[in-house]
Amino acid sequence: MTEYSAPRRDIEFVLYELLDYEQHCQKLPNGSEVDRDTVTAIVDECGKFCENVIAPLYNIGDKEGCQWEDGNVTTPTGFKEAYEQYVEAGWPSMTHDPEVGGQGLPESLETVISEMIGAANWPWAMYPGLSHGAMRTIGLHGSDEQKQAYLTKLVEGTWTGTMCLTESHCGTDLGMLKTKAEPNDDGSYRITGTKIFISAGEHDLSDNIVHIVLARLPDAPEGTKGISLFIVPKFLPDANGDVGDRNGVNCGSLEHKMGIHGNATAVLNFDGATGYLIGEANRGLNCMFTFMNSARLGTAIQGLAHAELGFQNSLAYAKDRLQMRSLSGAKNPDGPADPIIVHPDVRRMLLTQKAFAEGGRMLAFYIAFHLDTEKYGSDEEKALSADLLALLTPIAKAFMTETGFESANLGMQVFGGHGYIQEWGMEQNVRDCRISMLYEGTTGIQALDLLGRKILQSQGELLKRFTKIIHKFCQAHQEEESLKEFIEPLAQLNKEWGDLTMHVGLAAMNNLEEVGAASVDYLMYSGYITFAYLWARAAVVAQGKLDGAEKDYYDAKLKTARFYFQRILPRTQALAVIIKSGADNLLAMDEEQFQY
Amino acid sequence: MTEYSAPRRDIEFVLYELLDYEQHCQKLPNGSEVDRDTVTAIVDECGKFCENVIAPLYNIGDKEGCQWEDGNVTTPTGFKEAYEQYVEAGWPSMTHDPEVGGQGLPESLETVISEMIGAANWPWAMYPGLSHGAMRTIGLHGSDEQKQAYLTKLVEGTWTGTMCLTESHCGTDLGMLKTKAEPNDDGSYRITGTKIFISAGEHDLSDNIVHIVLARLPDAPEGTKGISLFIVPKFLPDANGDVGDRNGVNCGSLEHKMGIHGNATAVLNFDGATGYLIGEANRGLNCMFTFMNSARLGTAIQGLAHAELGFQNSLAYAKDRLQMRSLSGAKNPDGPADPIIVHPDVRRMLLTQKAFAEGGRMLAFYIAFHLDTEKYGSDEEKALSADLLALLTPIAKAFMTETGFESANLGMQVFGGHGYIQEWGMEQNVRDCRISMLYEGTTGIQALDLLGRKILQSQGELLKRFTKIIHKFCQAHQEEESLKEFIEPLAQLNKEWGDLTMHVGLAAMNNLEEVGAASVDYLMYSGYITFAYLWARAAVVAQGKLDGAEKDYYDAKLKTARFYFQRILPRTQALAVIIKSGADNLLAMDEEQFQY
Repeated sequence: MTEYSAPRRDIEFVLYELLDYEQHCQKLPNGSEVDRDTVTAIVDECGKFCENVIAPLYNIGDKEGCQWEDGNVTTPTGFKEAYEQYVEAGWPSMTHDPEVGGQGLPESLETVISEMIGAANWPWAMYPGLSHGAMRTIGLHGSDEQKQAYLTKLVEGTWTGTMCLTESHCGTDLGMLKTKAEPNDDGSYRITGTKIFISAGEHDLSDNIVHIVLARLPDAPEGTKGISLFIVPKFLPDANGDVGDRNGVNCGSLEHKMGIHGNATAVLNFDGATGYLIGEANRGLNCMFTFMNSARLGTAIQGLAHAELGFQNSLAYAKDRLQMRSLSGAKNPDGPADPIIVHPDVRRMLLTQKAFAEGGRMLAFYIAFHLDTEKYGSDEEKALSADLLALLTPIAKAFMTETGFESANLGMQVFGGHGYIQEWGMEQNVRDCRISMLYEGTTGIQALDLLGRKILQSQGELLKRFTKIIHKFCQAHQEEESLKEFIEPLAQLNKEWGDLTMHVGLAAMNNLEEVGAASVDYLMYSGYITFAYLWARAAVVAQGKLDGAEKDYYDAKLKTARFYFQRILPRTQALAVIIKSGADNLLAMDEEQFQY
Repeated sequence: MTEYSAPRRDIEFVLYELLDYEQHCQKLPNGSEVDRDTVTAIVDECGKFCENVIAPLYNIGDKEGCQWEDGNVTTPTGFKEAYEQYVEAGWPSMTHDPEVGGQGLPESLETVISEMIGAANWPWAMYPGLSHGAMRTIGLHGSDEQKQAYLTKLVEGTWTGTMCLTESHCGTDLGMLKTKAEPNDDGSYRITGTKIFISAGEHDLSDNIVHIVLARLPDAPEGTKGISLFIVPKFLPDANGDVGDRNGVNCGSLEHKMGIHGNATAVLNFDGATGYLIGEANRGLNCMFTFMNSARLGTAIQGLAHAELGFQNSLAYAKDRLQMRSLSGAKNPDGPADPIIVHPDVRRMLLTQKAFAEGGRMLAFYIAFHLDTEKYGSDEEKALSADLLALLTPIAKAFMTETGFESANLGMQVFGGHGYIQEWGMEQNVRDCRISMLYEGTTGIQALDLLGRKILQSQGELLKRFTKIIHKFCQAHQEEESLKEFIEPLAQLNKEWGDLTMHVGLAAMNNLEEVGAASVDYLMYSGYITFAYLWARAAVVAQGKLDGAEKDYYDAKLKTARFYFQRILPRTQALAVIIKSGADNLLAMDEEQFQY
């Protein structure tokens, strides 16, 4: 059984010591309400809910899974009751607009609580998580009528939402999708087609499910420019806005998956279901990007969540499990063997998880701050935040899930053979994490988005927005002797990042395939530098507080930063060589030559 | 559903073109019987058995798992019938001594067929696999009477064997084990204790199960020097040597695991069970090493097996699945999209699997050759082979399973979201592979064995035995322009390997913890160079045959070698930096500081 304890201290460090949440909130319309005590109380309250209510359901959810019967889905024991508590406590409405029943707190707080909820029980967290994406989409693109009809219910939490993109023949390539939307006389549409892989697509947690569906109007242009977005509720609202007639959308079956068994992954059959157009016709993919960006940050947090859960549980095991003696002499001479945390390689595995979990927290919150600023900053701030979000979202999604999976595997490895046994929960953490590199755009898709669409299409401008920030940070601290070990390698890598990008850009001018060939290694390279920037910032803060209270906390922060710089960051050296090796070694082989 | 096709052509390449099996067999006592036609027929026949009989049971075995009822275990549908066919065809006896009913073929052939059997259905393969380890242990350390009573039945295949080491409180640290062995008046022993994680520990495939059990005699010295080895059969042989009375060993339960569901992982309760001492008292661990070394090579092959299975299935999918257009223009203009194999990043994932699978095959067979030579070579050859086996066994076990797991994950990644769904079988390949880095000594344990016990304790001599071979190979080909791209980096890394070892050795003289701190990265580093040596040898062979028949095959071999050198081998650069970073960054943190 896994256990979870909310990392309140480290959350506070990132919010207030690293990123200065107090000052950040000043620029938000509702900033005065978000004083430090309020935030601490929110984090603490949510932490308790995670620790006591949903974390204990994590392993049960895996074992029981979701049950399908005649189109109805029953979630695992306790999931429904936990969701009721979540709604009663008002969590769904925390960051939404007061006009639709929200509490109007900054959106960044959503990221803070979603880390805890996700680490405690990711499959459960997906039900409210998908709802938030639906809320954002309707909030940004829906009509006032749609907001009144659907958003209020979603914000209340009594209804939940989903995101229906994928069809069996297309996931990445949405231009191929076939689901039809034919106009009715009353302005609504008849939606017909089959969607697969719909997370939280059918369940018993809420009174109604609001599907956000991509479909094609008659005579729409081919490809991605002919896709529109629709609201298709499971039950049509009645005259009072409550649950009315059953709509023609049904869950045909649930997928049997490697993990996240507690979340229902539905095949949804739309059989002339009534739907309502959101935004402009044929502009559905643009609206959907709102949903996708929020889902991508959400998935990045999944990487962090599994790293954190694996770290906490493998740390406890490493302190408890006695096996072999330390090479430098017994550390537990009265016991039959030493606790395995004395062994350097076990420490390597623990510190890797710790560095990725804490690094992920810094990046997730950093991005969340820019989400606030993109909305409420000055024009100049808005533009900068938008650029940074465009750059950092694919990095966070792919890098945090890849390193989250590495971490989850190391957490399991610390347990030795016991890690492979279900009762410890560590193999579940690995299985549940594995989907994060696939859904919401695979690592490969994020990498193409980063290098092709974001960096090269902007002639490197988007990258420069970020490397300038890093450059200024390095300049500000370059004279401090105690920080040299962080600032020097960071400054050097920051420069190399630009050079490497130029190298790939030039190669791509001759052959566009160079972009795809470099993409994933380039993304990982970028991720390591992004984390290095944040770890260096953490080191600056910690270094300044070594003499005060909580010396141990700051000292540990510094040691983790050092571990990251000495044992993780050198991976960039290999990646740079591999990136420069070019596309030929990938393209040279004929299709028929792969098979022997 | 996964499918498997035996890689006959590549097996032949490694056996006859890379390693010269014909010449190798000359020095074996039964070498004249092992002509090329015979070997080809054996590989082909075994390949058919794998493709047609056990591969189709791979996904069924995962779904059904093993069922426990009142101490009896039922294996999945078809497993028993497949095992009967395997026995009838004489596969268990192929490489064993004619005196105990074997066919006396070279032991190296066991590796060749076990790759195919393992890739087709690893959980099934474990039943005969564990038996082989038991056979080797009894064959080497058992009395004539024990060989007559047990080995003949194991060789026949009507009985199977297991390996009972682990107890709940000790796996790595066998010195802590508690199972007791008390002498009876008739020279036998009463064995009492509980063993866990016993693969193939109880099942319905064979008439009897011969457990090889580690236990402690009364008044035995503490720790590893007080452990003895026993044969404990499930049924005691009767006067005719057939199945007699039920012995006091029972399966208390089966573990619920992440994968390998088709293999029964048993908790075995020994309740005064009758056992027979193998070899000398208190020398059990030494005898068990025979079993363990063969099990470690077996587990290395598991890494290769999952890489191969993932590669074959993801290659087929990549040719079939249409999604997006090639960046350099449509390659399938008449279809709705291009097959994903046109995308460079998909090729990167396929080539990584291909390079690891073919590299693993070369290393496994290379080791198997030395197993033969250790037995039948000249004294000088025997000594060299023993040294190379000591060095390469931990490298093969850890490196081939780590890269096997990476490959299995890439195979799954090629499928996108579909990879996460059970029906495709790719997530099973990942789950089944994951155990390989844990059992038979974790990656960390292999790494300590390699760097501490093998290399540093021999003052680097064991390493030099191998680097000299690489050095001579490089010298022999250093003038060949067409091979420079392989020989130059290999020669340089081979030198660096020695320097790096010296660096760690010197650091370890000051602080033994430096060994543990460097160990896993050092092992991986060593693995990459070992594969590079074999890939360079493959390139030499292929380069020489580019103008003949099968040009495509050799050209593909050369391109895969190039991919390995350009895109995989540079990882050594990061590893070297990380290794040199020393132990401080792992040891500095106090135990209490890990937690925030």
